[in-house]
Amino acid sequence: MSAVDGLLDPRAVAVVGASERSAMAGRLTHYLRDFAGPVYPVNPNHRQVHGLPCYPSLSELPGPVDLVLVLVPAARVLSVVEEAGRAGATCAVVLSSGFAEVGDEGRALQEQLVEVARRYGLRVIGPNCQGLLYRPTGLVATFTAAAAGPQHPDSGIAYVGQSGALGGSFLGGAADRGIGLTAWVSVGNQADLTATDAAELLVADPHVRVLACYLEELPDGDRWQRLTERAASAGKHVAVLRSGRSAAGERAVASHTGALVRAGTAFDLLTREAGAVEVDDLDELLDAAVALTGDSRPRGHRIGVITSSGGAGGLVADQAGAVGLELPELDAATQEALAPLIPAFGSAVNPVDVTAQVIDDAGQFGAVCEAVADSDQVDAVLVVLTTIGGAAAVEVAESILRAAKRSTTPFAVAWMYSREQVAEASALLRRSGIPVLDTTTAALRLLAHLVPRGGRRAEPAAPRGLARLLDRPALTEAAGAPLLDAVGIARPRGQVVTDPAEAVAVAREIGDHVVLKVQSPDLTHKSDVGGVVVGVPADRADGATRDLLDTVAANAPHARVEGVLVQEVVPPGVELLLGVQGSEHGYPPVVTVGMGGTATELYRDVVSALAPLDTDQALALLRRLRGWPLLDGFRGRPRGDVAAAAAAIAAVSQAAVELGDGLAEIEVNPLVVHATGAVATDLVVTSHPRR
Amino acid sequence: MSAVDGLLDPRAVAVVGASERSAMAGRLTHYLRDFAGPVYPVNPNHRQVHGLPCYPSLSELPGPVDLVLVLVPAARVLSVVEEAGRAGATCAVVLSSGFAEVGDEGRALQEQLVEVARRYGLRVIGPNCQGLLYRPTGLVATFTAAAAGPQHPDSGIAYVGQSGALGGSFLGGAADRGIGLTAWVSVGNQADLTATDAAELLVADPHVRVLACYLEELPDGDRWQRLTERAASAGKHVAVLRSGRSAAGERAVASHTGALVRAGTAFDLLTREAGAVEVDDLDELLDAAVALTGDSRPRGHRIGVITSSGGAGGLVADQAGAVGLELPELDAATQEALAPLIPAFGSAVNPVDVTAQVIDDAGQFGAVCEAVADSDQVDAVLVVLTTIGGAAAVEVAESILRAAKRSTTPFAVAWMYSREQVAEASALLRRSGIPVLDTTTAALRLLAHLVPRGGRRAEPAAPRGLARLLDRPALTEAAGAPLLDAVGIARPRGQVVTDPAEAVAVAREIGDHVVLKVQSPDLTHKSDVGGVVVGVPADRADGATRDLLDTVAANAPHARVEGVLVQEVVPPGVELLLGVQGSEHGYPPVVTVGMGGTATELYRDVVSALAPLDTDQALALLRRLRGWPLLDGFRGRPRGDVAAAAAAIAAVSQAAVELGDGLAEIEVNPLVVHATGAVATDLVVTSHPRR
Repeated sequence: MSAVDGLLDPRAVAVVGASERSAMAGRLTHYLRDFAGPVYPVNPNHRQVHGLPCYPSLSELPGPVDLVLVLVPAARVLSVVEEAGRAGATCAVVLSSGFAEVGDEGRALQEQLVEVARRYGLRVIGPNCQGLLYRPTGLVATFTAAAAGPQHPDSGIAYVGQSGALGGSFLGGAADRGIGLTAWVSVGNQADLTATDAAELLVADPHVRVLACYLEELPDGDRWQRLTERAASAGKHVAVLRSGRSAAGERAVASHTGALVRAGTAFDLLTREAGAVEVDDLDELLDAAVALTGDSRPRGHRIGVITSSGGAGGLVADQAGAVGLELPELDAATQEALAPLIPAFGSAVNPVDVTAQVIDDAGQFGAVCEAVADSDQVDAVLVVLTTIGGAAAVEVAESILRAAKRSTTPFAVAWMYSREQVAEASALLRRSGIPVLDTTTAALRLLAHLVPRGGRRAEPAAPRGLARLLDRPALTEAAGAPLLDAVGIARPRGQVVTDPAEAVAVAREIGDHVVLKVQSPDLTHKSDVGGVVVGVPADRADGATRDLLDTVAANAPHARVEGVLVQEVVPPGVELLLGVQGSEHGYPPVVTVGMGGTATELYRDVVSALAPLDTDQALALLRRLRGWPLLDGFRGRPRGDVAAAAAAIAAVSQAAVELGDGLAEIEVNPLVVHATGAVATDLVVTSHPRR
Repeated sequence: MSAVDGLLDPRAVAVVGASERSAMAGRLTHYLRDFAGPVYPVNPNHRQVHGLPCYPSLSELPGPVDLVLVLVPAARVLSVVEEAGRAGATCAVVLSSGFAEVGDEGRALQEQLVEVARRYGLRVIGPNCQGLLYRPTGLVATFTAAAAGPQHPDSGIAYVGQSGALGGSFLGGAADRGIGLTAWVSVGNQADLTATDAAELLVADPHVRVLACYLEELPDGDRWQRLTERAASAGKHVAVLRSGRSAAGERAVASHTGALVRAGTAFDLLTREAGAVEVDDLDELLDAAVALTGDSRPRGHRIGVITSSGGAGGLVADQAGAVGLELPELDAATQEALAPLIPAFGSAVNPVDVTAQVIDDAGQFGAVCEAVADSDQVDAVLVVLTTIGGAAAVEVAESILRAAKRSTTPFAVAWMYSREQVAEASALLRRSGIPVLDTTTAALRLLAHLVPRGGRRAEPAAPRGLARLLDRPALTEAAGAPLLDAVGIARPRGQVVTDPAEAVAVAREIGDHVVLKVQSPDLTHKSDVGGVVVGVPADRADGATRDLLDTVAANAPHARVEGVLVQEVVPPGVELLLGVQGSEHGYPPVVTVGMGGTATELYRDVVSALAPLDTDQALALLRRLRGWPLLDGFRGRPRGDVAAAAAAIAAVSQAAVELGDGLAEIEVNPLVVHATGAVATDLVVTSHPRR
């Protein structure tokens, strides 16, 4: 028997620390009542627990055991795990706390725990976890009170998370929604089995259709990519809620699990690329999971709204724009189809106001739903309902279900009424993959999250062997020039001088006026130390070079100065910031483009994508800048050579992929876009020490 | 008896159209069971309805009647209202539909209805409304199924709205939250009594502490201001949800009530100024109302978060920034006070992680709540709870309540668990004015809405008599110059020439180079028709003027051209857009300031305030621009004369107030801010026809 089978489909389960005296221990044994195989309470102080014979120790069980649940004080856990190993168990779920989460002593104990488990080939979940639940085998191996609710029909949704508390919230929320989870795993301190391990296990499980993850630390990029791709190719879906996205968030998580969140943007982009859904809170995670069981996602941002309340329709129209959704006017054919279905005082535009009259006629209401879902103006249908409860609500739900089943357009419902009154109808819808939310804003946010935003990366296309150009930790603009040349990015003409006396001759070769830039691997912000002078007459380049070197020496006495780059003056154009963060933790490099000048900093007008990009993708990225019109002939300005800009972005992204793990960062700031061409006017390349 | 008393505290109520046959009519009579006075069902087809004797007509009632509820087909409503008038009733609630909402014929019928009612001095609510509910007299005069739920303790919250459907949602939502409404009025078509009338009535009612309004059309500005001020001075609160804020929203509302939303920004600003709370959806309206019954609002944007789940704390930290809230690090004194209350593996920073251990100890948890609420780093406390339900949840709620009662810092709770499990505890909190939300994001959004954003307008300070300067519908820059001079705003030197031959002499007086601008009341966008030329050498001003006039004549042949303004060249500076929309519908003028150039259009970097502003307020407005650093010496740029800019903004705002209803718009674009001084470099003033 594999450890995995032992975890989800064990022949028998033992509960060490079983007792009816504490609520936690009591629930732990009680919840196992639906498990098909033998359940062995173990506790030397009891003869019976919840009607089951209780055994003094694991060595005295009447049959083999695969899974051992451990709920004894931390100090006794090691010996129990050792005993479990000797008894031939393959998995231990250590629910006890008092390990890494309490400090150094606990961390040492946790390390010993892993050592003991490895010795016996035992997989450990936890410690400090809340256990797991696996519906196909009736295994409820947790003490959380949240598992006590009524059993609802199996939804195909599995949950994995680090936080036991939020896991309980997820379970409770699912019960409220009238849906049963297929699996639920709280991994706790992840001493052995991590959230990613559990997620891989569940994605591979034939009973699981949707995986919902709550992550406090980022998984390895390669593994996360494989996992999401495997899910997609199996027709499964992944939804994820990630904690610690802000600095303050990092602090909170750090003090909780000792985990540090990194490379967040790369994770977000990779998640989107694989078609997984990232959300902002726990209710959204649940509702997204429900929607994903429907196997149909909005194709785009256009929603058709159907409501029985003109007022509610007006609200939706107001709120949609805030989350990037649109309410297109419905096409003439759809409006014609709707006209006979709706009273004259309703509306067949969008929102479609069917009036209270139509909502009472399930057949007619269903026909309206079908007509709107059939419109090719509409990527998703949002039904907004108000004061309809009880049996009438169930009828409305059934007519929505019939319409949804006929269509590939996804449906969502905002039902603004007493939850009790609509509980049955809502559960009916949710069990068919139609999410039901309490408010229009929540429904709109969910639909916006569900719109796929992915797109495959391009094929690598950079010349091979660029890595030899990374011959030191930081390349100056001059030292990085060969890299630009190798990938075909234009740069200003220039030459480094080490002696001010050479400067005039070099400058005269270049033009009437030149730019002088100090070159030092220690100075990435040259301007800040007076290391850049612009518009220097060629004839005075010697004195200016001397002055520049003096100024830098005064401001940054310890910087290693390699010389002064005497460079062509680049005519003004639209300035872009172009940066790539190198590959890290298994994540691909991330390309970031921003409107240069003040827009990057004041308006955060930056967009990112995973490398590599081809030029079409780079152009699409540029178009996402709010400042795009500045490149596109805004208010009579000259149109920029966006093809050249896109080519430069693509080339840098390709270079980053080819440079691999050695690359820390490439920054071109600015890339100046002219009516013809785009020029990399400054460059910094940094690399990691060889690994 | 006044009409108002007849509405909320009638001596007797008659129900015309009473019946047990239809669900609506049945509920209407049934709900009146708790009304203290006599209830008279009226229907010639029945002898009894719900055990009450039924009368054939209003003229045959056994006693006087003040309030008549009308639920008969539209065609019969007029005669019933006439009969009600004859019977001495003071109020009729017309629940029947088939009036203005169904088109022209219905509109005519509605007008007749109002005529009849006026003839008898009868106030009418509706038609096409869902009635009202007034707890102090036990009056439930509605047929909405949403009123059927259990009676919860009176909250002091009153609701007024146009949409009956959303009114039902509000009632249902209140029941779910375990709170009872003091009053609830659905005004329907507002043929006579409007939402504003009802709101005024309820704000004046001693039983009402919080007024929650759902508005589909904007109230008159003066009335809305008086209402919100009256509420504030009585220590009451107003929360409002407004539909139709977007263009698409307007369409939906227009097709519903024929109402057109206007002057939305002025409404929003006036609402904030009065300390009322504006929200984005119906759940927020309810939760805001609950919070406002607590009489304590966040003083600012800093929240202290207390949680039993480090994971949840991390989520909150991530989400807070998105709604403009901060999680400040708690001061040393508070951290010291917390240290002994929290286990070593918790956190006393912010979020404060008390761990599951502390949450189980109500006394200790209460002490943590008190310590955080006492910190002067914190404007509000958010308690984030997860898997705690039933009796344990009630204990936690009680310890929060005790802490909240000791403090003036408001509390909110995000309780992420099965709603059923926390229903009792949540109701307990809500009844003391502590809102309980399902998710951390919802709690954060609510807290952000509750932060007061008001600020009184300045005293009017413009010179009197400016109105005489508005001597035509549109003033050109030259014609508007006296207005700038009158309020002390600097402008470039210049003079209008009508003959190109004069241009050179005028230009030489001004400088080496000049700007030429066509002056026409028909051309507000002069540049678009080639009506502006910059940098013209003074000696060539004649030819340039001639060319300019030719170009304009070709591009805009019908524009009335008053001449060409020969103007001083203004040196570059930071450009601002400065506009004022004049007073309208009783709302004060609205001043809008934006970062000029591309930022206004591409980044929507604009802020608005009600006029008039003093210079301090104008400066505060400027500081709210994301582009403010550009005025403040961003990256070594020269610092702008923000005092001069603020003075110009204040002066324009004051002028708008003095100009009164006649003013349509003043636009200075751009106001160029220099290191010393700020210059109004272009100007358009438009006015309304005299009323």
